Amino acid sequence: MAANSTSFTKAPEPPYYAVIFSSQRADEDRGYAQLADRMFQLAAAQPGFLEVESARNADGFGITVSYWSNEQAITAWEAHVEHKSAQELGQRVWYDNYQVRVAKVERAYGKTHVT
Amino acid sequence: MAANSTSFTKAPEPPYYAVIFSSQRADEDRGYAQLADRMFQLAAAQPGFLEVESARNADGFGITVSYWSNEQAITAWEAHVEHKSAQELGQRVWYDNYQVRVAKVERAYGKTHVT
Repeated sequence: MAANSTSFTKAPEPPYYAVIFSSQRADEDRGYAQLADRMFQLAAAQPGFLEVESARNADGFGITVSYWSNEQAITAWEAHVEHKSAQELGQRVWYDNYQVRVAKVERAYGKTHVT
Repeated sequence: MAANSTSFTKAPEPPYYAVIFSSQRADEDRGYAQLADRMFQLAAAQPGFLEVESARNADGFGITVSYWSNEQAITAWEAHVEHKSAQELGQRVWYDNYQVRVAKVERAYGKTHVT
């Protein structure tokens, strides 16, 4: 799996967990791409990580959804020291606004799963 | 609320539901913008609809997350006759791949909610 994939990967069967991260980028760009890429790599290395999908509009509004096998994996990721530091920087420098939503995926379907 | 908003609106307190729709656009473009806009408007008019957020990369990969007050509202929206017809067309013409995930939002936080 490409850790910074922005397209489809094979989804597991529900239930599993999703972190929906919506953000509005500020104009400040310095270091963002490198740190974002590092966070993708780091997240992908955590226990319980499944997949990540990400999209951003030209105007800077973006949605990243990471998928996790259970809630404990998300709590651990939120508390990861390097991630905490990145969150702090993101809030101060890169994001005008952001929202994090932790959700339990109860069902899923799609074209890639149609047989 | 702008029905086709791609940025932030005031989120309610969890629990509520999310429909995470990931899609890879095909090259075919005819009629897409009009129908997508119609679907935003129609969704926003359904009972239980809360908000929608949407982002798409230049390469055609996009994520739209709609928020709903309960699961029944989502089931009704999935079965809406005009929406069903749009889904069918989307699968046939506009989307190379797509995934729909229905999830229960259990907690949420963000910069806009920091007091």
